[in-house]
Amino acid sequence: MKALEEKIRRDGQVRPGNILKVDSFLNHQMDIEFINEIGKEFHRLFGDRPINKILTIEASGIGIACLTAQYFNVPVVFAKKSQSVNLDGDLYCTKIASFTHKRTYDVILSKKFLSAEDHVLVIDDFLANGCAVEGLLDIINKAGATLEGVGIVIEKGFQEGGKSLRAKGIDVKSLAIIKGMTDTDIEFEEQDD
Amino acid sequence: MKALEEKIRRDGQVRPGNILKVDSFLNHQMDIEFINEIGKEFHRLFGDRPINKILTIEASGIGIACLTAQYFNVPVVFAKKSQSVNLDGDLYCTKIASFTHKRTYDVILSKKFLSAEDHVLVIDDFLANGCAVEGLLDIINKAGATLEGVGIVIEKGFQEGGKSLRAKGIDVKSLAIIKGMTDTDIEFEEQDD
Repeated sequence: MKALEEKIRRDGQVRPGNILKVDSFLNHQMDIEFINEIGKEFHRLFGDRPINKILTIEASGIGIACLTAQYFNVPVVFAKKSQSVNLDGDLYCTKIASFTHKRTYDVILSKKFLSAEDHVLVIDDFLANGCAVEGLLDIINKAGATLEGVGIVIEKGFQEGGKSLRAKGIDVKSLAIIKGMTDTDIEFEEQDD
Repeated sequence: MKALEEKIRRDGQVRPGNILKVDSFLNHQMDIEFINEIGKEFHRLFGDRPINKILTIEASGIGIACLTAQYFNVPVVFAKKSQSVNLDGDLYCTKIASFTHKRTYDVILSKKFLSAEDHVLVIDDFLANGCAVEGLLDIINKAGATLEGVGIVIEKGFQEGGKSLRAKGIDVKSLAIIKGMTDTDIEFEEQDD
């Protein structure tokens, strides 16, 4: 998505440790009009699938998922980071490692909101090592639901998450894939329209 | 908002300890079409103010704020619950007590995204004791920004948050105010249109 690549180049900031800050429009301050364009693009890419639910994880995925869901006319369900291990039988539980925060979260989703009848599109802001998406896929498997695809705003193509998910046959579409970045430049992978 | 009261009566569940679960449409699974109606109602109530930014707090406020922001044509900024005390000079910090989780969070907001020029509408899903809103107001004060109003989806009118904020002259508008609830019935305060 050319407009996204331009916006990342213009407004993104590269920090030491391969950190890309896009907090001026995507995950702290949110440019609602622009994220609606992202939602339309996800619909262009996945609109032919029988998707009846969008799944994401708190916190920064939620706003993107909600704006995107308007183009699919489906509800959003977001998995929650739990404060403590929760053995409630009414919940799907999984563990997700966060490299940013150097810890592991317990992530939960109420069984009421995901079942074998559901056809799910996973949406998230970033894909790097893929831990968050793997956790959501684990929940989808536990529910017996069908994964229709994974829509990512920004993929760090130099990390392993995207490759690993695609190697399993999962349809991952990222609106911008970063090949490499330095303080002064961000290089994107060429993508077909 | 009558449609909201009806939805709470139909889909909400009252649990011991004055807990109201509305996770089937508001804060775990999200009914996007219905939350758009909530957004329109917030715009009807606050649309005459010179609002240029909507402020909320992760996680469950984000989706509601994003859908609402479409009717105001403004960006959303969400405050983040921090993992650790953060002394970065580029951040506003405050503390928010959570009764649900029985702990205190450090909450942060980048100074880049809130300044003395901003006219802010605060949006959140619930108002009970008011701790989350008080924390956001503390950040608004630190930024020297102007608070234009507080829009809440569900207020627990039998707790002190709403009264305390209104006593300070803050314009709090809640789309549904719960007067009392039992296992079998939820009673709402009458409100003018």
